[in-house]
Amino acid sequence: MNPLNLPQPYLLFLADVSDPRYAKTAQGLRDWVPEQCTGEWALPGNPLRLGLPELDPIEARARGARALVVGVAPVGGRIEPAWVPGLIAALEAGLDLISGMHTPLSGIPELAAAAERCGRRLIDVRIPPPDLPVASGRPRSGKRLLTVGTDCALGKKYTALALTRAFRARGVDADFRATGQTGILIAGSGIPVDAVKADFLAGAAELLSPAAHPDHWDVIEGQGALVHPGYAAVSLGLLQGSQPDVLVLCHAPDRTHVSGYGPGFPLPPVEEVIALNLAHARLRKPEARMAGVSLNTGGLDEARAALAMDRLGDRLGLPCADPVRGGERFERLVSACLAD
Amino acid sequence: MNPLNLPQPYLLFLADVSDPRYAKTAQGLRDWVPEQCTGEWALPGNPLRLGLPELDPIEARARGARALVVGVAPVGGRIEPAWVPGLIAALEAGLDLISGMHTPLSGIPELAAAAERCGRRLIDVRIPPPDLPVASGRPRSGKRLLTVGTDCALGKKYTALALTRAFRARGVDADFRATGQTGILIAGSGIPVDAVKADFLAGAAELLSPAAHPDHWDVIEGQGALVHPGYAAVSLGLLQGSQPDVLVLCHAPDRTHVSGYGPGFPLPPVEEVIALNLAHARLRKPEARMAGVSLNTGGLDEARAALAMDRLGDRLGLPCADPVRGGERFERLVSACLAD
Repeated sequence: MNPLNLPQPYLLFLADVSDPRYAKTAQGLRDWVPEQCTGEWALPGNPLRLGLPELDPIEARARGARALVVGVAPVGGRIEPAWVPGLIAALEAGLDLISGMHTPLSGIPELAAAAERCGRRLIDVRIPPPDLPVASGRPRSGKRLLTVGTDCALGKKYTALALTRAFRARGVDADFRATGQTGILIAGSGIPVDAVKADFLAGAAELLSPAAHPDHWDVIEGQGALVHPGYAAVSLGLLQGSQPDVLVLCHAPDRTHVSGYGPGFPLPPVEEVIALNLAHARLRKPEARMAGVSLNTGGLDEARAALAMDRLGDRLGLPCADPVRGGERFERLVSACLAD
Repeated sequence: MNPLNLPQPYLLFLADVSDPRYAKTAQGLRDWVPEQCTGEWALPGNPLRLGLPELDPIEARARGARALVVGVAPVGGRIEPAWVPGLIAALEAGLDLISGMHTPLSGIPELAAAAERCGRRLIDVRIPPPDLPVASGRPRSGKRLLTVGTDCALGKKYTALALTRAFRARGVDADFRATGQTGILIAGSGIPVDAVKADFLAGAAELLSPAAHPDHWDVIEGQGALVHPGYAAVSLGLLQGSQPDVLVLCHAPDRTHVSGYGPGFPLPPVEEVIALNLAHARLRKPEARMAGVSLNTGGLDEARAALAMDRLGDRLGLPCADPVRGGERFERLVSACLAD
């Protein structure tokens, strides 16, 4: 009954994948936890570079790396046969293997045998820990923030990471709590909540942000959306078990329909999504509040982005900022989160 | 990608359990689907009887039984060693074994070996089918009713079964759709939704009540409660994927707190539970409506029960009935469900 705990620091494996669009996991680790990235390792002939020290497994182990992370995910999300000799070399060098791919590492017989022989671990961050409890529902000390959304894939992880960094910059004791594979690799621990059996989902969320010092903040990576046709259950279990004091809504101004679902699935108004999230949050914590909006303005130029943030912020009467752009607006959102 | 499908009719196994309180599964099958119960079988010395023909596995097989159902669940929910010879005899007589216990049948080596040897199946109704899809969210033909609740364990299965029976009595084409182990045994098919991984929960609910004739009703067994501290995610995934036209709220007049959670967990007002269920249901089906309340008045005498139903019905402006008591009130609830 513990969240996953990963051996760090990492050697980031780029394999034979040269297209940087398929190396988002490695890039995310480099950007968010460079201190946990001992180096990068591409197979011969792969020109992709991340700007970290270029090390093979033996060199990386000598510099303190404890695990090789599969940092690329080509279409299909499989471990390719051409990678297996390199992965075995990493095990032989004394590194554990960590993967967020769909195929489990232990499903590849050569890897399973090599791990057994070398006494090393194969860790799949998509597989939740065993023996999760049913939620107790009991309040616990410490403060919690959960990022929620109007849809999937619009910045809930990024927002939680940026807020954690900003809290710490202000001297606030804060931890990022990861609920998806990339987040778990960044944090070095967490629970992939979307793979948890429904009965134990809120219990997993309780375990993920345990009782803490009254001034401590857990900043929890949200998943899905309460209004999502496929993943609403994940969002609700996470919300119930997290018992957040503060919610931050993640939205994108150009998102009119549920991503991947098409024309029959318009997003409900932002106001409705906020009301529904607060209704559920206040069942567990009557003083729960929506502190503001994190707006993903990646598709807009600076002037249009500013306009979109101001318009939505005025409409809702809440701070509205894009954490990627940062600046004054983001500082106001941070202040609103921390305000008592 | 199919719901579980069980071989019927059954031989109900009472084993060595003499206390009728631990034979609820067998009693439920006798009461709801007597036509699927070929007989009952108690081990020597067990005086418990259900009133069905007393048959051993060979006799039951000869009369057409296709499976033995473990119809008792003593404290702990385990298959006892003393039952194993009888279960093996059933396999040898040509019956499959069906269990809703916590320990899977296949986890008992002697049973696994005997099933293999006899070419028979071991079916655990707590284990969901593999390869469930993510919900498409697309509307589908046919009508659907879902029972929802203010808490767990107050009559959602019973209400769905009673409504299915009442619909059929009025000549309406209706199927009961089971989402828990006892319901699945009664229906002979279904999906134990609380054991489904969160990402696939709404998809499982879509599979459970597939597209049907426009006049056909699926009456779906609800689980948990949207406001429950532990199981809200189960309820929401089931609600989203079921896309109900009609909801019926199940409540108990003497239930003031979440069952098993204690004094810190008062139930929210019934009005709040109704509003929250409708808010979620209308995301998928804007015309979804709450047809009425099924009130579990088991703890009250007839006069008090009538008063409780009338008071709550008047307060909400909805029909309110106890399906166990039936009568005029229940017929009004049935009419409200079927009203266009």
